[in-house]
Amino acid sequence: MSSRVIPVQPFVLTVFGATGDLARRKLLPALYQRDRAGQLPERAAIVGASRQQMTPEAFVAFARAAITEYVPAGDLEDADVARFLARLTYVPVEAEGEGGWPQLAALIATHTDMIRVFYLATGPALFGPICSRLGAHGIAVDGARVVVEKPLGKSLESAVALNKAIGEVFEERNVYRIDHYLGKETVQNLMALRFANNLFEPVWNNAHIDHVQITVAEDIGTAGRAGYYDTAGALRDMVQNHILQLLCLVAMEPPVSLDADAVRDEKLKVLKALLPITEANAGQLTVRGQYRAGASAGGAVPGYLEELGSSTSETETFVALKAEIGNWRWSGVPFYLRTGKRLASRVSEIVITFRPVPHSVFDASAGTLRANVLVLRLQPEEGVKLWLMIKDPGPGGMRLEHVPLDMSFASVFGVRNPDAYERLLMDVVRGNQTLFMRRDEVEAAWRWVDPILEAWRASREPPKPYTAGTWGPAAAIALIERDGRTWSGDD
Amino acid sequence: MSSRVIPVQPFVLTVFGATGDLARRKLLPALYQRDRAGQLPERAAIVGASRQQMTPEAFVAFARAAITEYVPAGDLEDADVARFLARLTYVPVEAEGEGGWPQLAALIATHTDMIRVFYLATGPALFGPICSRLGAHGIAVDGARVVVEKPLGKSLESAVALNKAIGEVFEERNVYRIDHYLGKETVQNLMALRFANNLFEPVWNNAHIDHVQITVAEDIGTAGRAGYYDTAGALRDMVQNHILQLLCLVAMEPPVSLDADAVRDEKLKVLKALLPITEANAGQLTVRGQYRAGASAGGAVPGYLEELGSSTSETETFVALKAEIGNWRWSGVPFYLRTGKRLASRVSEIVITFRPVPHSVFDASAGTLRANVLVLRLQPEEGVKLWLMIKDPGPGGMRLEHVPLDMSFASVFGVRNPDAYERLLMDVVRGNQTLFMRRDEVEAAWRWVDPILEAWRASREPPKPYTAGTWGPAAAIALIERDGRTWSGDD
Repeated sequence: MSSRVIPVQPFVLTVFGATGDLARRKLLPALYQRDRAGQLPERAAIVGASRQQMTPEAFVAFARAAITEYVPAGDLEDADVARFLARLTYVPVEAEGEGGWPQLAALIATHTDMIRVFYLATGPALFGPICSRLGAHGIAVDGARVVVEKPLGKSLESAVALNKAIGEVFEERNVYRIDHYLGKETVQNLMALRFANNLFEPVWNNAHIDHVQITVAEDIGTAGRAGYYDTAGALRDMVQNHILQLLCLVAMEPPVSLDADAVRDEKLKVLKALLPITEANAGQLTVRGQYRAGASAGGAVPGYLEELGSSTSETETFVALKAEIGNWRWSGVPFYLRTGKRLASRVSEIVITFRPVPHSVFDASAGTLRANVLVLRLQPEEGVKLWLMIKDPGPGGMRLEHVPLDMSFASVFGVRNPDAYERLLMDVVRGNQTLFMRRDEVEAAWRWVDPILEAWRASREPPKPYTAGTWGPAAAIALIERDGRTWSGDD
Repeated sequence: MSSRVIPVQPFVLTVFGATGDLARRKLLPALYQRDRAGQLPERAAIVGASRQQMTPEAFVAFARAAITEYVPAGDLEDADVARFLARLTYVPVEAEGEGGWPQLAALIATHTDMIRVFYLATGPALFGPICSRLGAHGIAVDGARVVVEKPLGKSLESAVALNKAIGEVFEERNVYRIDHYLGKETVQNLMALRFANNLFEPVWNNAHIDHVQITVAEDIGTAGRAGYYDTAGALRDMVQNHILQLLCLVAMEPPVSLDADAVRDEKLKVLKALLPITEANAGQLTVRGQYRAGASAGGAVPGYLEELGSSTSETETFVALKAEIGNWRWSGVPFYLRTGKRLASRVSEIVITFRPVPHSVFDASAGTLRANVLVLRLQPEEGVKLWLMIKDPGPGGMRLEHVPLDMSFASVFGVRNPDAYERLLMDVVRGNQTLFMRRDEVEAAWRWVDPILEAWRASREPPKPYTAGTWGPAAAIALIERDGRTWSGDD
């Protein structure tokens, strides 16, 4: 791997919210790894910014602690760590005041002729204030790039407002709406499988695919963030962004190239083709749930309301949906989507089930013919498996077995799977927006999600309770089983 | 494996030519392995027959030597060997005289209510005489089965005569024309892949397959049988039977079931759909070769004429053909066939090359997109590999690699691949003709082969010389390369 790493252009990356969880767990470790791999040019600089009064030395100590905790010990070498930490500095800045901005502007100005990247690892309420100050203080020069994280709004209306605030300072071609699911190796593999092989695309349609499942299951609860979570819920927190993005990559037409707008045009078409879920059909096509006390990882865990410290909440911690894409390729192929907290295990995967063979030439002794299934797993371990029927070897009759074929080839290459943030951060510096969401995509996703939220409000039905540590409410099982299908991997 | 072995019905198997090479190297070891696996019922009996005057004890000693030499030492256990040898007896018989037949009839009559199988491991000149005596002496009772080996004639006319002689005593449903290629595990896997999975059949046609190659390459010369070989040649010896059978299994329409006649009807349709090769096009579509002295396995080896002890011969020891199947599924897809002796290595394989992707979405840095290729290898080791393009893992751009995916799963099951004769002998006892050639198939294959032989005779061109240990005459390379393709695996 290392022999093929090409350094990116010199850049100065300012991280707002630099002392927060995302910086500590993901951004600093990812930047360290890219530095260690030789991808950061000598002059690359990283500026921490947050409201905390902190010396640069204290921030370096914070960063050292972060990489020590989140980089595997075998990847930590003194020389690499020292080189990385030497890139860091820190400026205290008031996102909603004027304090610190002149100092930040002066500091960044010392890095001449470098790509400027601003990573807003803050709550969305600060996106507008920070962007406007980056503009007002002349920091966001022409070509400067901004990276923003979800949640990108909590409705179409708020997303439009957010995009507008960002767009007043940054051109769309410099806005990087990050979704770390899209940076995963498996998502890249999906693109390679679909478009670099002629075996899959001819069968990638409603004539040959029976249905698709996308599951993003967490085993944890709200992890101390119940207050925030209660204003969002599973649909906004996971479906509007991650799951719909994965759905788009599975379902999109082959783009003319992997250029950002070519890919995003195709994804947008999928979002626009999603059949609406409204009051008229939400009862059939959606299931909401909220966990009660139960067991997880062998221990008793509290319910959502206990975590929230409230006697009532209408917020869903689980959602299952049956979506359909109304176009020639996909009409009639259900996309079953589900996500939730405190489920039986932590697993994120895309499961593509092909249609059964139309007719069996085998007699009963061959055993049951099961369908071909392509499983793209994103968590906990990444990997791609194709389930096939093959002959059980031996001189007897034709006995068939359903076996998984490993298509991720980790063993062939023997390299570590990079964290998604490593790829995505370098893509920002490279100016490659392919794996980032365009404004119209985000808004189209909200345009599909908003009526579901509205239908739930109108129904006045509370979320269905489920026991922590299970696969959600029984109604979610019924959602797929009444179509004669089963959620993958629940057994 | 052993836990799933179901014993066959009691049988008495008489092997004519029991002291010959086939019995020694293949039949006796295969029967031993099936006995060891628990598939032979207690009463199963094996009768050796040949013109040699030999006691039963001497035949048992011959059989013991055969299995000691040809069964892996780890599979030889005293109790198994003793049980197997106790099944054997021997009768000297004159195939073209009357000596020994009453004794054979009396011996077989002692095995009451058992399936009678006669394996003619002799030259084809004796098939008629043996069959007529089996009839005349009342040995071939109703339901008795006969197994015959290639060569099944050396032209359409002689094949018809042979089939007629056999058919005067045995009904077609009791005639087992054996082709050990069809008993190979890989051939079974081809059926499983095609018909137990819905991923392959939709792309198994001229819209998605570019071309097919079938190679049966030997590294040995005529091995002391030059005299016989000179009357046959590569086209009769390998193409008429093995290669055309493999071609049929690749190309046939899905049969309604794996019942013998359902499969054989479909294979027959393929044979009938082969476009004729005649004087008009044999120059473009065929290449004949004959080896000269060269090197094999690191040592000098003589040429064919030296082995034959003659200064001249028109017999081809190599043939390459470009065949085409004139039907809706395959029109326009070349099937390149080749076989020969004293080639660069011993390999038998079917290589199915899919069309390239119609359009690349990747930029130049991704590397060259190569086609998907399915390789079914029959020799020396059996296995199925699918070549795919996948993403080279890492956080950089999209770099693609062409890698082979093992689809034979030997490692999953961890069992030994049975020899083809094991399966086929048990199929005879089970009365399953699926893997055996029907009379009309054999004749249809000759009907396609005869005009090629005729065209060669008419051309008066001698076979092209090639050096032993190479891949045949340069013209065979040109045959495929002028279509912009390359023989697989020659590099």
